[in-house]
Amino acid sequence: MTSLSEIKREVLKRVKPTREEEQRVWRVVNRVVEKAEEAARELGVEALIEVEGSIAKGTWIRGDKDLDVFIILPREMGRESLKTVGLEIARRAAGEKWLESYAEHPYIEAEIEGFKVDIVPCLRVEKAEEKATAVDRTPFHTRYVKEHLTEEQKNEVRVLKQFLKGIGAYGAEIKVGGFSGYLCELLVIRYGSFERLVEESADWKPPVVIDIEGHYDSPGKAVQVFEAPLIVVDPVDRRRNVAAALTEEKLCTFIAASRRLLEKPSLNFFWPPPREIPFQELIKMVEDRGSHLAALRTGCPRVASEVLWGQLKKSLRGIEKLLETYGFAVLDARAWSNEREEVVFLFELEKVLLPRGRVARGPPIYKREEEKRFLESSRRRILAGPWIAGGRWHVFEERSYVDARRLLEEKVFSASLGELMREELRRRREVLIDAELEKLYREIEEFREELADFVVKKPRWL
Amino acid sequence: MTSLSEIKREVLKRVKPTREEEQRVWRVVNRVVEKAEEAARELGVEALIEVEGSIAKGTWIRGDKDLDVFIILPREMGRESLKTVGLEIARRAAGEKWLESYAEHPYIEAEIEGFKVDIVPCLRVEKAEEKATAVDRTPFHTRYVKEHLTEEQKNEVRVLKQFLKGIGAYGAEIKVGGFSGYLCELLVIRYGSFERLVEESADWKPPVVIDIEGHYDSPGKAVQVFEAPLIVVDPVDRRRNVAAALTEEKLCTFIAASRRLLEKPSLNFFWPPPREIPFQELIKMVEDRGSHLAALRTGCPRVASEVLWGQLKKSLRGIEKLLETYGFAVLDARAWSNEREEVVFLFELEKVLLPRGRVARGPPIYKREEEKRFLESSRRRILAGPWIAGGRWHVFEERSYVDARRLLEEKVFSASLGELMREELRRRREVLIDAELEKLYREIEEFREELADFVVKKPRWL
Repeated sequence: MTSLSEIKREVLKRVKPTREEEQRVWRVVNRVVEKAEEAARELGVEALIEVEGSIAKGTWIRGDKDLDVFIILPREMGRESLKTVGLEIARRAAGEKWLESYAEHPYIEAEIEGFKVDIVPCLRVEKAEEKATAVDRTPFHTRYVKEHLTEEQKNEVRVLKQFLKGIGAYGAEIKVGGFSGYLCELLVIRYGSFERLVEESADWKPPVVIDIEGHYDSPGKAVQVFEAPLIVVDPVDRRRNVAAALTEEKLCTFIAASRRLLEKPSLNFFWPPPREIPFQELIKMVEDRGSHLAALRTGCPRVASEVLWGQLKKSLRGIEKLLETYGFAVLDARAWSNEREEVVFLFELEKVLLPRGRVARGPPIYKREEEKRFLESSRRRILAGPWIAGGRWHVFEERSYVDARRLLEEKVFSASLGELMREELRRRREVLIDAELEKLYREIEEFREELADFVVKKPRWL
Repeated sequence: MTSLSEIKREVLKRVKPTREEEQRVWRVVNRVVEKAEEAARELGVEALIEVEGSIAKGTWIRGDKDLDVFIILPREMGRESLKTVGLEIARRAAGEKWLESYAEHPYIEAEIEGFKVDIVPCLRVEKAEEKATAVDRTPFHTRYVKEHLTEEQKNEVRVLKQFLKGIGAYGAEIKVGGFSGYLCELLVIRYGSFERLVEESADWKPPVVIDIEGHYDSPGKAVQVFEAPLIVVDPVDRRRNVAAALTEEKLCTFIAASRRLLEKPSLNFFWPPPREIPFQELIKMVEDRGSHLAALRTGCPRVASEVLWGQLKKSLRGIEKLLETYGFAVLDARAWSNEREEVVFLFELEKVLLPRGRVARGPPIYKREEEKRFLESSRRRILAGPWIAGGRWHVFEERSYVDARRLLEEKVFSASLGELMREELRRRREVLIDAELEKLYREIEEFREELADFVVKKPRWL
């Protein structure tokens, strides 16, 4: 068996950028910085342009496409100026290909030489705490990490990031709900090394509190303030939990994967082997366990990734609830998008065809008026009863939908959906059941592995 | 439309015993009394032999088979004497055909000329309250009703009893969980007439408190003492709720039927029309709504009715739980017996065949030891996963039973059963699914109407 330290060495060899790579990244951001400075000058604004994020902190890894350039405006200009002057500078710095986005704050998402460069206007504040927003705080984070992370530890962060990527838990964005880069850096600052972190986290029992700067007298105090399974108090802002966006599922994934990594170190945790399974085999697995696949395919709204995934998650929950309400037990559900033109809501259902009738619970006998309405209602098609059980009227009535396909086709708009997804669904939608999913498998290559993961379910690192 | 008073007159004509019938009943009980007195003399016991129940109170109706003779022993003889001397007197008075029973107290259930005569030893007490048991109190009940019920009102009680019989809510025994004769008498004493009772009860909102003798300062006080939807404080014993055995279902049935009777008076409430439906039609109804019938047939233990129905209800709940635990949704369940040789547990199931796999929830990730056991367990046959969701491991595993028939055949003993039913099931059992129930329909004539009611579900008075 390969030891963990050997694995680590190999990982680092693969993720630590070469000098050439680093130069290239810096060339990209520096060009943005220069263009922004020029735009600020033209607009007569005293803006400070700063490179933030992993590239600035020296924890950037090969293959990471996210870069950040901040436009720091004087405090006196006020928050409104971010949307006007701030965004205008960002636009001018963005080059050809960009999107305007308004997640928590307005910013420009530019695509430059294959990198996604977020150009973010913010206000200069004295301390991270006072009236600062998440973006106003970013420069403080950059400074804190630069001051506290040793040269050695930068590599530990790199290994940790690749581990989290491998197990699908890297990134605080809604799509992932995982660990942000800053969170990785703080964890290494706290535990000193990747191994120590992994050993410690294998025994984490939430709520876990990490308070590097001792902002709170005790972990209990922090627990009272933050409601989260992992609480990492921001060293530069005691009111903020750096791990707030981390979902329980991704924290659990990290814990479980850490244990397995310690038991049996392997590169598979860092680069899970691809899962290429022919469609016929996938559908056979599902058939074999007696369940069913249902996919709802639609178009993708042209919005920033954060907005898109917010819409996808909300809509997924809504459609899942619709299915459950009509009696279709949902065993698993997932939303997928290539973030360009395709969106697929994917469900594993216990059944796609239900029996014709269902038992519906009516009002309590004691409510005389409701009883009258129930007994005299002609809305329902009665198959048996009504009868009394447990103090209430019951009736065996015909289901309005026995077919998951028809329900999804006809009733999806009564689900709680994200508004953008509602529009896309109005424009086009297609329901595919079981073997029909082959069409997706054939037409959308990027979807194949997603479908395989959905069917196999076992994490690839396990 | 016939008026309620016309209906009442017709009912009374049919249920009030003729002079000849009354004489015959008295002949039966008097013979038991004489034999008991003789036995007491022979045994040298100063027992007082009294006729109790509806015949003594003048509320007996035609077709009622239950008669009561009490053997009241001197207090000094102690409670133990009931089982020895008391039962011995009862046995000697019972004639040829009898059963010994120990529900709450020991007594003899004799069959004489088609009547069921309960011969019950009890102790003479001064007041109903002090250390008295339910049977010690009975003579006080008889006395109370005789003193408070007018000649007219006796007929009101008779109409009420027939109404309750018609809607299946007459009798406090476990099988029915309905209104006892004494409860009927108290309700008429309280409301004066059948019509008044029916009008009042149509608006009952539980908990309903009836405290004729004003034993409690307020209804609220009584509610604090008794936990029941209908509280009728025993006039001769303030600690007792005469309606304690009444189930919520039967109270609701009474309320709902009262409302319908007022809306549209009919003899159908008193003598519901028979339900004769060919088996093919019944099975078609079930097929049509997409559900399934499952029957578990076994033998009937030779015990008193109370004991039998206690066993049946407990076993029914146990088997229902077994089915649910293994994933078979139970839409309706009923136990039936002719109280001689046949017992049938009857279920309506959403499905009798389940998909091969099911999603099983494992331990929380945080419990490291449990996680280890779960992941390394070889007990389950895994079809997909394991995977993490909601902070827990999950696995798609093979069901141990996909077939309700096999489950009932092989696993019924792991259900929580009445011990007597467990023995019967060991001796013989037969599982019948859907069309196979025709065998029961053919072989057990008394079962036909039960099956029809179970399938149609709508009460016959509705």
